[in-house]
Amino acid sequence: MMNRLLMTGAAGGLGTQMRTRLKHLAPTIRLSDIVEVTDPQAHEEVVTCDLGDKDAVEELVKGCDGIVHFGGVATEHPWDPICNANISGLVYLYEAARKHGHPRIMFASSNHAVGFHPQNKVIDNTVYPQPDGLYGVSKVFGEALANAYHSKFGIETAIVRIGSCFPKPTDHRMLSTWLSYDDLAGLIGRIFDVPRLGCPIIYGVSNNTASFWDNRQVKWMGWQPKDNAEDYRAEVDAAKSKPAKDAPEVLWIGGAYTADKIHE
Amino acid sequence: MMNRLLMTGAAGGLGTQMRTRLKHLAPTIRLSDIVEVTDPQAHEEVVTCDLGDKDAVEELVKGCDGIVHFGGVATEHPWDPICNANISGLVYLYEAARKHGHPRIMFASSNHAVGFHPQNKVIDNTVYPQPDGLYGVSKVFGEALANAYHSKFGIETAIVRIGSCFPKPTDHRMLSTWLSYDDLAGLIGRIFDVPRLGCPIIYGVSNNTASFWDNRQVKWMGWQPKDNAEDYRAEVDAAKSKPAKDAPEVLWIGGAYTADKIHE
Amino acid sequence: MMNRLLMTGAAGGLGTQMRTRLKHLAPTIRLSDIVEVTDPQAHEEVVTCDLGDKDAVEELVKGCDGIVHFGGVATEHPWDPICNANISGLVYLYEAARKHGHPRIMFASSNHAVGFHPQNKVIDNTVYPQPDGLYGVSKVFGEALANAYHSKFGIETAIVRIGSCFPKPTDHRMLSTWLSYDDLAGLIGRIFDVPRLGCPIIYGVSNNTASFWDNRQVKWMGWQPKDNAEDYRAEVDAAKSKPAKDAPEVLWIGGAYTADKIHE
Amino acid sequence: MMNRLLMTGAAGGLGTQMRTRLKHLAPTIRLSDIVEVTDPQAHEEVVTCDLGDKDAVEELVKGCDGIVHFGGVATEHPWDPICNANISGLVYLYEAARKHGHPRIMFASSNHAVGFHPQNKVIDNTVYPQPDGLYGVSKVFGEALANAYHSKFGIETAIVRIGSCFPKPTDHRMLSTWLSYDDLAGLIGRIFDVPRLGCPIIYGVSNNTASFWDNRQVKWMGWQPKDNAEDYRAEVDAAKSKPAKDAPEVLWIGGAYTADKIHE
Amino acid sequence: MMNRLLMTGAAGGLGTQMRTRLKHLAPTIRLSDIVEVTDPQAHEEVVTCDLGDKDAVEELVKGCDGIVHFGGVATEHPWDPICNANISGLVYLYEAARKHGHPRIMFASSNHAVGFHPQNKVIDNTVYPQPDGLYGVSKVFGEALANAYHSKFGIETAIVRIGSCFPKPTDHRMLSTWLSYDDLAGLIGRIFDVPRLGCPIIYGVSNNTASFWDNRQVKWMGWQPKDNAEDYRAEVDAAKSKPAKDAPEVLWIGGAYTADKIHE
Amino acid sequence: MMNRLLMTGAAGGLGTQMRTRLKHLAPTIRLSDIVEVTDPQAHEEVVTCDLGDKDAVEELVKGCDGIVHFGGVATEHPWDPICNANISGLVYLYEAARKHGHPRIMFASSNHAVGFHPQNKVIDNTVYPQPDGLYGVSKVFGEALANAYHSKFGIETAIVRIGSCFPKPTDHRMLSTWLSYDDLAGLIGRIFDVPRLGCPIIYGVSNNTASFWDNRQVKWMGWQPKDNAEDYRAEVDAAKSKPAKDAPEVLWIGGAYTADKIHE
Repeated sequence: MMNRLLMTGAAGGLGTQMRTRLKHLAPTIRLSDIVEVTDPQAHEEVVTCDLGDKDAVEELVKGCDGIVHFGGVATEHPWDPICNANISGLVYLYEAARKHGHPRIMFASSNHAVGFHPQNKVIDNTVYPQPDGLYGVSKVFGEALANAYHSKFGIETAIVRIGSCFPKPTDHRMLSTWLSYDDLAGLIGRIFDVPRLGCPIIYGVSNNTASFWDNRQVKWMGWQPKDNAEDYRAEVDAAKSKPAKDAPEVLWIGGAYTADKIHE
Repeated sequence: MMNRLLMTGAAGGLGTQMRTRLKHLAPTIRLSDIVEVTDPQAHEEVVTCDLGDKDAVEELVKGCDGIVHFGGVATEHPWDPICNANISGLVYLYEAARKHGHPRIMFASSNHAVGFHPQNKVIDNTVYPQPDGLYGVSKVFGEALANAYHSKFGIETAIVRIGSCFPKPTDHRMLSTWLSYDDLAGLIGRIFDVPRLGCPIIYGVSNNTASFWDNRQVKWMGWQPKDNAEDYRAEVDAAKSKPAKDAPEVLWIGGAYTADKIHE
Repeated sequence: MMNRLLMTGAAGGLGTQMRTRLKHLAPTIRLSDIVEVTDPQAHEEVVTCDLGDKDAVEELVKGCDGIVHFGGVATEHPWDPICNANISGLVYLYEAARKHGHPRIMFASSNHAVGFHPQNKVIDNTVYPQPDGLYGVSKVFGEALANAYHSKFGIETAIVRIGSCFPKPTDHRMLSTWLSYDDLAGLIGRIFDVPRLGCPIIYGVSNNTASFWDNRQVKWMGWQPKDNAEDYRAEVDAAKSKPAKDAPEVLWIGGAYTADKIHE
Repeated sequence: MMNRLLMTGAAGGLGTQMRTRLKHLAPTIRLSDIVEVTDPQAHEEVVTCDLGDKDAVEELVKGCDGIVHFGGVATEHPWDPICNANISGLVYLYEAARKHGHPRIMFASSNHAVGFHPQNKVIDNTVYPQPDGLYGVSKVFGEALANAYHSKFGIETAIVRIGSCFPKPTDHRMLSTWLSYDDLAGLIGRIFDVPRLGCPIIYGVSNNTASFWDNRQVKWMGWQPKDNAEDYRAEVDAAKSKPAKDAPEVLWIGGAYTADKIHE
Repeated sequence: MMNRLLMTGAAGGLGTQMRTRLKHLAPTIRLSDIVEVTDPQAHEEVVTCDLGDKDAVEELVKGCDGIVHFGGVATEHPWDPICNANISGLVYLYEAARKHGHPRIMFASSNHAVGFHPQNKVIDNTVYPQPDGLYGVSKVFGEALANAYHSKFGIETAIVRIGSCFPKPTDHRMLSTWLSYDDLAGLIGRIFDVPRLGCPIIYGVSNNTASFWDNRQVKWMGWQPKDNAEDYRAEVDAAKSKPAKDAPEVLWIGGAYTADKIHE
Repeated sequence: MMNRLLMTGAAGGLGTQMRTRLKHLAPTIRLSDIVEVTDPQAHEEVVTCDLGDKDAVEELVKGCDGIVHFGGVATEHPWDPICNANISGLVYLYEAARKHGHPRIMFASSNHAVGFHPQNKVIDNTVYPQPDGLYGVSKVFGEALANAYHSKFGIETAIVRIGSCFPKPTDHRMLSTWLSYDDLAGLIGRIFDVPRLGCPIIYGVSNNTASFWDNRQVKWMGWQPKDNAEDYRAEVDAAKSKPAKDAPEVLWIGGAYTADKIHE
């Protein structure tokens, strides 16, 4: 069991959900975000930190033996904030990890790292990245960095290409990409439990009938998601009209991101 | 035929060699570097430019219908210069290309993008990247960026994972990785000649008997390198003692880079 | 939702079963066969039509926005009827579809298109066809035609390689190849529901424990068959003696068809 | 050595060229075409024959122990002539072969059987067909028929996907697809010389630097083409302007055929 | 149904468990071991036999139409006993099978035939063997022998790479490798029931969530294991401390065997 | 450079040829065979040794820093001599190597380790073995042993699946499988020259046009065979009648061995 688990991006959507679900992983959870994390509990330490601040990141990481890294920009953005948090910020995080005890890391990559693969071809974790914008490119950067720090220094990272992590699927694409909060929590649990992690790529997706991702290569981790977006198909059909057959939402894994402009 | 070809990094090793070899590609060659490019010829325009200067890069690219991008840091370095030139600088270059005519680009990636693949397994251009340091990670970033700008905007890039481009091979690893200047020039010629380029990954390596790279997937480009590092084996054997069987120089594609420290 | 769904071969085994199961797919179902379709319901239009009659087929297709194509010869036959209905008839059908609104098509291909693949090697939908007779060859023709009309004109077809679609499995090979009527109906429902179909090949087989087909590549469609031939193993064992280890029934996917003579 | 070799389509382009080059394969060469074959030599028998005439085809095949089948429609055409010669005609040919001694067959398939594969991905002979029109579909039919007659009756066929067989390459696509007459003759020589042929698929292409086809899987046949379209690149560049990067000529293997209309 | 089933190694762990579970497979079960098999039942014949005794093995096999071969050394040992029982003994067994009716054989191979494949890469039955000691090498020998006798003489063998067959999983590696007795019995039942067996390689593993073996290629056999080691994870976690991330128990499929010395 | 190279089987066909060709590899060559090696030169040490004699083998290996292992039975034989020399003898050799300095080893495996792969499918070094008799099985054993000693103890072996090593090809199969003496010598030179060998499988075959083996995966070794069996095709055609299309000589890689009886 870990002594102190760091969760970055703790004030964001996933961070907020995981705070309660992951408290069994360590007696102390250190929560950080660029905005203040509210309502700290007895077992929680709160640190407000800009990932682009190298020294602050080093302080943040020191003393932690596990990191759940949700921090950084989580949607398409102009270059500067992406470069600050997702690019340089990640280098600072891994440098801190290298200097301070080699904590195991869960890195929140994204389906947008492979957003320009077509939806109608099931892919596994060996495909070459095809990002769908600057955000996706920053996630490919992060995967590469994690990979290098594993090969070079033995720091273990689970690269999780998160699909659509929301309370429930709310459009047709999410019937394939949905990841329930409980399944994400289950996955993070496995990541910090397996004796040897290495640096695997895992699609963060529930047990959806209509998934276009194949996690067979990481079956050895023992993660079996339990929720299924199919249970919400009727609800989605009722709420949303079906996309046209040539809409980005049905052509590419990354959906609307693939058609998004560059944010200048 | 192009009207104006931009070559970045023109004062560097490869740039200097290619200035003479590529002059047939366009009536005007625009040469840029962060240091001054010396001895300009009648057909050459010289622009001194820091790739980290967004506006300067936009000016640099404007009016060019082809780019040979050697610019940026070309060996392992501390993070700041890598981030400035290889990361942000590349974003500025592609943004400029997007705004100004979608010139075709030759992007000098590196074998260090796959530096942690073992030498004794022949790989092709479909493998997942395994970079060997911050420099290698910056090249994976560049490949991903090129890929996204092709998928999203149709900008064509030849991603060339350059091996060891020197006058001749001078150590045992280079008997596999050597790329002669003439073969590089031949490759660049093909890149700007094929009617449709797309965004292929090409190993920049001569016709070496002992190559560990397989370019079969890009045979359609019609590039056939002519030089062979094998012709220099006796010379290398005479000049250099053989590495031990567990030396980084013979274990990994990236050679000594894999054992290199992070430059803080 | 479609306005009018055409079902060819509606008087045959599968057509009869699907009439009741597919009525929710469109307010009007047009039923056609070379023999008269009996007992039309209020929501059904009946058209008697020889698929080898080009003009009649064009009339048949006009006004339909979906086609379930069971029509044509469904077992090994002499060449003339195969050529008339399965070859020329299919060309007429696709030409009509091209001229009249590009309806989405479910094409009933057959396991006999891959009948000479061995049973003891699980195959997916990327294998090269190995048909087991003139009927199987006609199905390979149909798959190729559907493919060409998709690439060239964007007409979407689900190519369904139907296994053994009967009330229940009645011999040992069907323990692998059985497709229940309900599972077929469920598949057809998905085919006309997915926003983007493309031109996938799907093995039409229930969720049989002993299947030798792998539908993983079309998991994105969200089809999950529910029946399992294994539930009938004891019944089959009781009713049928086991085939010899070198019998066509156990050697090849196509079973007895592989040993069948050409029908002159 | 064979006693009598049948060559169909003998009055066509390839037939005319092969008459002189293949005369060493058998003491008697039987030449057939739908038009009269002119100027028969002492070792040649001439038979005028419509492939759609079943009885005539049976007579034609009788007594031959090898067949070079160039006959039938060789470019995109309306359906009726394709069906007559390439579909029914081929069934008659194989039925005749089955009844009369199982002669070994060279079947002239075409690159148009895989015409909708992209040019910038090197393919081998295991890919699923993607034909580019009715002509291409007829070639997929022929491949399937040859395959079935091999699996079922042991009749051996070399399926040759002929590229562009002309005196020399005359456009940019042919720099990849050109097959010289001498190389075709050499291939046919090997086909009738190997002790065991089976039913392989062979890309009929010269030793072109810029080929997008990979014949590695049939290296065991011992065919090594000698000509190289690259020798004509300068000539093609001088004679033809380069296609645009989104022209069918550079996008797809089948070139202009992919954009061709259906011939009604 | 068989008349007489031979089970070798019948006094060992697996043999003892299978005696009761397999009695429905044949009216007579012949049990053999190098030590005496105790407590024979009415339907059981007991033969004490050293597998290294060629004549005794021939007698043993005679009259049996099925063999479950658990016999021989089942853990790492010095060379002489391995050579006697697992190497020569197996040759004698297959020679006897060749001479006496070609009984179908279940050969107990082992995960140690692939013990040096890493645990964090899911493998199927097509991988090249990587044994982890002399015992593992003897199992590769056995697989090769079974394969040759199938290719040459048609003797069918199911090569079962048994994981960890015990009452329940008792360490972390077994959460991946556990095979329950009931699942083994179910597998053996299928092996002797399928009409055509051939010579497949099957991973002998229960339906474990954390399995690193993929049996998809033998799905056609219709075996569906029912037990899941995951049900015992809490129990294992409570009883055993987790291995270090670089311990042989978590690095390699073969676990501690990979670090075992050669038994001189 | 090595100090002392051991060559076993030195009185055999290959040994005799290699004695003169390999003398540059070490100042002292130790030659051993079960029969006396004749005519020793000044740089040669001769040791008569039965590989089945464990102590003698240990003495033989001591003091050598490289081993070319041609020793043992080299064709199909009864079990006892195969077991003595190829099985136990090889264990003794590797045990001696483990105890005495871990010399690098060239292990003469054989095409008969994959003899039941079909000739008309080009294979590389990743295929699962399919031996064609007891001799072939002994070679699979040897490959597995070499593999285990590499994984476990770091002893490097080049596993060379020798084709047909004779002065020239003398039958049709050898047009594919021939290995010239000079090419074998060149390969052995590379094996002892590469800084890191590992444990690769190499097909020992000349640069034959009609090869059915693909050595691409070991291109990194820098071995380029120079001879080509094709130069002898006319000679073979003149001397030998062609095999029937269903003869073992043309069906299987192992040729006539596949049809050979077991030597009792």
